[in-house]
Amino acid sequence: MPARHAIPQLSVAIVGVGLVGAELISQLLSLPQPSPFTLVSLSSSKRTVFSPSGLEITPSTWASSLSSSTSTLNLQQLALQLSSLDRAVLVDNTASQAVADLYPLFLQNGIHVVTPNKKAFSGSQELYDAILKASKESGARWLNESTVGAGLPVVQTLKDLVASGDKVKKIEGVFSGTMSYIFNEFSTANPGGPSFSSVVRIAREKGYTEPHPADDLNGADVARKLSILARSIPSLQNSLPAGYASVSTRSLVPSALEAISDGTEFVERLPEFDEQFDKMREEARAEGSVLRFVGVVDVEKGVVKADLERYPTAHPFATSLGGSDNIVMFHTERYSPRPLIVQGAGAGAAVTAMGVMSDLFKLA
Amino acid sequence: MPARHAIPQLSVAIVGVGLVGAELISQLLSLPQPSPFTLVSLSSSKRTVFSPSGLEITPSTWASSLSSSTSTLNLQQLALQLSSLDRAVLVDNTASQAVADLYPLFLQNGIHVVTPNKKAFSGSQELYDAILKASKESGARWLNESTVGAGLPVVQTLKDLVASGDKVKKIEGVFSGTMSYIFNEFSTANPGGPSFSSVVRIAREKGYTEPHPADDLNGADVARKLSILARSIPSLQNSLPAGYASVSTRSLVPSALEAISDGTEFVERLPEFDEQFDKMREEARAEGSVLRFVGVVDVEKGVVKADLERYPTAHPFATSLGGSDNIVMFHTERYSPRPLIVQGAGAGAAVTAMGVMSDLFKLA
Ligand SMILES: NC(=O)c1ccc[n+]([C@@H]2O[C@H](COP(=O)([O-])OP(=O)(O)OC[C@H]3O[C@@H](n4cnc5c(N)ncnc54)[C@H](OP(=O)(O)O)[C@@H]3O)[C@@H](O)[C@H]2O)c1
Ligand SMILES: NC(=O)c1ccc[n+]([C@@H]2O[C@H](COP(=O)([O-])OP(=O)(O)OC[C@H]3O[C@@H](n4cnc5c(N)ncnc54)[C@H](OP(=O)(O)O)[C@@H]3O)[C@@H](O)[C@H]2O)c1
Repeated sequence: MPARHAIPQLSVAIVGVGLVGAELISQLLSLPQPSPFTLVSLSSSKRTVFSPSGLEITPSTWASSLSSSTSTLNLQQLALQLSSLDRAVLVDNTASQAVADLYPLFLQNGIHVVTPNKKAFSGSQELYDAILKASKESGARWLNESTVGAGLPVVQTLKDLVASGDKVKKIEGVFSGTMSYIFNEFSTANPGGPSFSSVVRIAREKGYTEPHPADDLNGADVARKLSILARSIPSLQNSLPAGYASVSTRSLVPSALEAISDGTEFVERLPEFDEQFDKMREEARAEGSVLRFVGVVDVEKGVVKADLERYPTAHPFATSLGGSDNIVMFHTERYSPRPLIVQGAGAGAAVTAMGVMSDLFKLA
Repeated sequence: MPARHAIPQLSVAIVGVGLVGAELISQLLSLPQPSPFTLVSLSSSKRTVFSPSGLEITPSTWASSLSSSTSTLNLQQLALQLSSLDRAVLVDNTASQAVADLYPLFLQNGIHVVTPNKKAFSGSQELYDAILKASKESGARWLNESTVGAGLPVVQTLKDLVASGDKVKKIEGVFSGTMSYIFNEFSTANPGGPSFSSVVRIAREKGYTEPHPADDLNGADVARKLSILARSIPSLQNSLPAGYASVSTRSLVPSALEAISDGTEFVERLPEFDEQFDKMREEARAEGSVLRFVGVVDVEKGVVKADLERYPTAHPFATSLGGSDNIVMFHTERYSPRPLIVQGAGAGAAVTAMGVMSDLFKLA
C-alpha cells in the first residue's frame, strides 16, 4: 500500500548561530536519515548562505562555510526566497527585536516561525496581534516552546490545557535559572548563609548570569516569560498592552546602582546592599519561609507579576528546587487541588535547542 | 493572501464511550467553531453510529443517539469506512485487547490511531512491531500520550528527548495513582500510621482502586506503562518480547490471596498480612526512608522493573507527592545531574481525555 500520508520535506532557515543556533545545527545534522528537514539557509548577523535544495554542510564545515560567504543577511529577501519553497520555516535563534518584528512578514508569506527568542511575544500588543493575524490568514504557524523553560514542556502544556477546555486558575513558578540559582544558594531553611552579593558574584563567575547581572536581577526576563504565558490564556490575551512592560515587576537592582553600565563595577558595589537582603532573608526565616523570585499569573485575580516572595520551607519551591532549575505549577480546574508541575533545567544551549527541535517535529 | 496551509478536516471515530470516551466527546463538542475535527462515528461494545459527513449530535443527545442505533460495531467495517475518508483517526477509549489487535489494520489503511488504551503497546513484541510497520508503510501515525500519566506530558517529553538526540539514562517514577495514594497514606516520615489493609480498603471505598484491588496491587498497570516508555527508547525497543510480562514486577498481592476473585473478599482477608507490610514500613523508617511503589527504566543497566522501593524522606517521591499524584523523573545526558520532572494527577477522565485531545491536536 502506498504511503498515504507521505510527509513533504520542511525547508529550515536558521537565523542566529550562537550558542543555541550552533547546538540546533548539530542536533539537526545528527538526525537519522532520511529526516523530514532540509537545511536551506544559515545566517549570523553579518553573513548568510542559502541553497533552496539544501546546504551541503556537515557538523565540522557549516561554520567555515558561513564565514566564507560573501552575502549579507537581508531578511526581506530571505522571506521572499523561503516563500517560493513548498513548506518552509524560519528558526530565529537571535535575541533580536529587528528579527522578531518581521515575523508577520514571514507568516504572511506562509512561512512557519519557530523560535526561542522572547521578543516578539512579550513586547507590544500590536506586534503580537500582527503575528496572530498573519498566522491566521496564511495558516502558517508560530511555535515558541523554548521561550519559557527552554526544553521543558511548559508552553505546549499550557496550550493543551487551554485547548482541551480546562480552566487555568493560576500559574506560579521560578522561571529564571539565574534567579533560581541565586535564591537556592542565598535563602535556605538553615540560619545564616552567604551574602547576597557573594552569591551574585559567584553566579557571574560561573557564567550563570548575563555579563551584566542587572539584566537578570531587574526581573525583565521573568516578566517576558510571564507575558508569553499570560497571552496564551484567553481571558488575559489582551491584558498586557505593552507586554513585559505591563507586568508588575519587582526589580532587585538597587536604585542607586541602576545607572552603572559596567557589570564588574555593579558587582563590586553590590555589597553595599547586603544588609537589606540579609534583613529580608531573616524576616522570611522568622516565619519559617525562604525567599524565591517567582512569576505569577493569577487568572482569577487578573494579576501578572514577577516578585520576590516567601515560601514555607516545606513548599516545593523550597524543598524540591536545586541548581538553576526552573519549576512551573499549573493550578487548573482539573489539576486541583494539586497542581500539574514541570521542573528541570530551564536554560542551556542543548536543552533550549531541544525545545526548538520539538517545535520543528510538530511541523514535520 | 489565500490560506496556504489551510488545514483539512480530521474525521474522528470514537470507539469506547465510558468515562474517558464520554469526557472526550464533551471536550470535542465544546471546541470553538470552526474546529479541525469532524466526529463521524461513536461506538460502545454493542452499538455504533457512523456518518461520513459528521454526526448530528450535541452534548445532550449523543448518548441517546448511540443507544437508539440498531447497528452493531464491526471494526473491520469501520476501518473500511474510515479509509474512504480523506484524513481519519480512530480514537480507542476502551481497555480492549480485541480493539488493540486491529491497530495494524487501521494504520495500514492510512487511519491514524490515538488512544489511552495501553494494551497494544505493552503486549507482545509481535503486535508492537506490526503497529510500527503499518505506520511506517502508510505514514499514518499512532499517538498514546494518555497511556502514561494521563494528561501529563510524559510520552511526548520522552519522544522529544530521544528525537533531539539526548541520551536517556534512567526514568524513575510513581506511575500508578492508586499505588501513589496507598503509599502516600501508608508510609510517611512519621512513626506509626494506618494499617496497609485499612488504606487499601479506604482507597477502594473512594473509588481509587479497580473493583478488585489486586488489579492495582499486582503491579501490572505499572509494568504496562514501563514497557510503553522502554519501547520508546531505541536501545530498549526490543528488550521486552512479552511487553509488560517481560518487566520484572513485584506483586503486592499476597500469594495466599491470589486465587480470590472477589474484590470484597480480598479486602476482608488483607488484614492477615498487615504485619508484613508494617515490618517493611518500619525497616524503611529505621533508615530514614519511606516506601514507594515505583517504576524504573534503567537504560544503562538495561533493567526495567516495577518494585516497592525505599526513598529517603528528603527525596521528591517522599516530600513532593500527595494525593494520587504521579511523578516521573527523566535522568538524561542533558538533564543531569538534576532530572526533568513532571508531576500531577495521573488518572481521571477529564485529564485522560485532555491527553487524547493533545494527541488529536498534533494530528490536526
Ligand atoms: N542560551 C540559553 O540558555 C537560552 C535559553 C532560552 C532561550 N534562549 C534564547 O535563545 C536565543 C539565542 O540565544 P543564544 O544564547 O544562542 O545567543 P547568542 O549566543 O548570543 O547568539 C545570537 C546569535 O544571533 C545572531 N544575531 C544577532 N542579531 C542578529 C540579527 N539582527 N540578524 C541575524 N542574526 C543576528 C548573532 O550573530 P553574530 O554571531 O553575528 O553576532 C548570533 O549568531 C535568544 O533569544 C535567547 O534569549 C537562550
Ligand atoms: N479512567 C482513567 O482515569 C484512565 C486513565 C488513563 C487511561 N485510561 C484508559 O482509558 C481507557 C478507557 O477507560 P475508561 O475509564 O473510560 O473505561 P470504561 O469507563 O470502562 O469505558 C470503556 C468503554 O469501552 C467500551 N468497550 C469495551 N470493549 C469494547 C469493544 N471490544 N469494542 C467497543 N467498545 C468496547 C465500553 O462499552 P460498553 O459501554 O458497551 O461496555 C465502554 O464504552 C482504558 O484503556 C483505560 O485504561 C483511563
